Amino acid sequence: MAVRFITLEGLDGSGKSTHIRRIADWLGRQGIRYRLTREPGGTELGRAVRQVFLDTRWRRVDGTVEALLIFASRRQHLLEVIEPALAAGEWVLCDRFTDSTIAYQGHGRGLSLASIQALDQLVTGGRKPDRTLLFDLPPEIARQRGQSPKRRSSVEGVDRLDSEGLDFYGRVRQGYLELAEAEPERFRRIDSAGPHEETERQVRSALADWVSERG
Amino acid sequence: MAVRFITLEGLDGSGKSTHIRRIADWLGRQGIRYRLTREPGGTELGRAVRQVFLDTRWRRVDGTVEALLIFASRRQHLLEVIEPALAAGEWVLCDRFTDSTIAYQGHGRGLSLASIQALDQLVTGGRKPDRTLLFDLPPEIARQRGQSPKRRSSVEGVDRLDSEGLDFYGRVRQGYLELAEAEPERFRRIDSAGPHEETERQVRSALADWVSERG
Repeated sequence: MAVRFITLEGLDGSGKSTHIRRIADWLGRQGIRYRLTREPGGTELGRAVRQVFLDTRWRRVDGTVEALLIFASRRQHLLEVIEPALAAGEWVLCDRFTDSTIAYQGHGRGLSLASIQALDQLVTGGRKPDRTLLFDLPPEIARQRGQSPKRRSSVEGVDRLDSEGLDFYGRVRQGYLELAEAEPERFRRIDSAGPHEETERQVRSALADWVSERG
Repeated sequence: MAVRFITLEGLDGSGKSTHIRRIADWLGRQGIRYRLTREPGGTELGRAVRQVFLDTRWRRVDGTVEALLIFASRRQHLLEVIEPALAAGEWVLCDRFTDSTIAYQGHGRGLSLASIQALDQLVTGGRKPDRTLLFDLPPEIARQRGQSPKRRSSVEGVDRLDSEGLDFYGRVRQGYLELAEAEPERFRRIDSAGPHEETERQVRSALADWVSERG
């Protein structure tokens, strides 16, 4: 199978956002056409949904409401951005996808995994990323690195870094690790607790493997 | 069973909005405490979602995206408004609920009824209105009456009156009639094609029956 749809997952502060641009540059240098995108901000609808989350008034919505809004923007994102790019032969580099919902709303907030899977089936028709980079590190370190306001940019983490305890992020991390364990073919765990250069070395190695699978 | 949760359903232009206020007044005169509300505008989240629909940019979202946004605001509405009012012993008068989604997104736009039922189960846990008034009339008359801008206020109908054909509204009406036929205990069909006074007489008769069931 040709690898074309790649997602980046992990806690806020795990380095995803920094590395996704470097990955894009690297793919470009290999002559691979790519589309760089993110959830839930990749469409106008997604940006509207993101604004709903950023707005402090909505902080108290429950996990089901969150999941429905996220899946609405996910479907719009799939139809408007991801599927057309894949159909045009581009690679898609996407910051967060359904694994985030399973980790955050499922393992983190306690929404049943069966519900999330039912929504996923309705919304994506079973479309999964070909490969997923999991930027893994202990929540304590993620929190430290996530203190910078510019990193507080995702639906999952925004403004909750202070209000949700480390327990929550521990459950999210554990959820990610279980996903990676269940699908070793799709997931590549990147240890992002160490220095940037070491993380980047692991990312490059994964990409080189995937590019060599092309054809 | 004591009747306490009442919904009003029907095409835009069917008279729901006019009659719901008169019903509220009537309940008040019977000494019944009530909460008057509407979908999807009954909460701040609902109003944000409604704005998404009103915005012309979103007109092209597909039926699944629409349904997810509607069910997100429905759940928020249930948790924030409907359940607390019922728990406090109030009657709830709600302009539109899940039947609208089945009629508009299901029968009208072709989203599978199984998907809608799965979402409904996730979101409402099976909570249904105790009684539903269906304001029924041919789409041609609804369109005529719906020409007034102030009536173009619902997610389902707004700005689609001109762009969706009568075929669409015919399917929606048919969907409503099938729902009413399947649950004759819950539904009361109100013929709202005639003069206002005649419609109101039917509404009063239904209410009187329901109030007498109290206890």
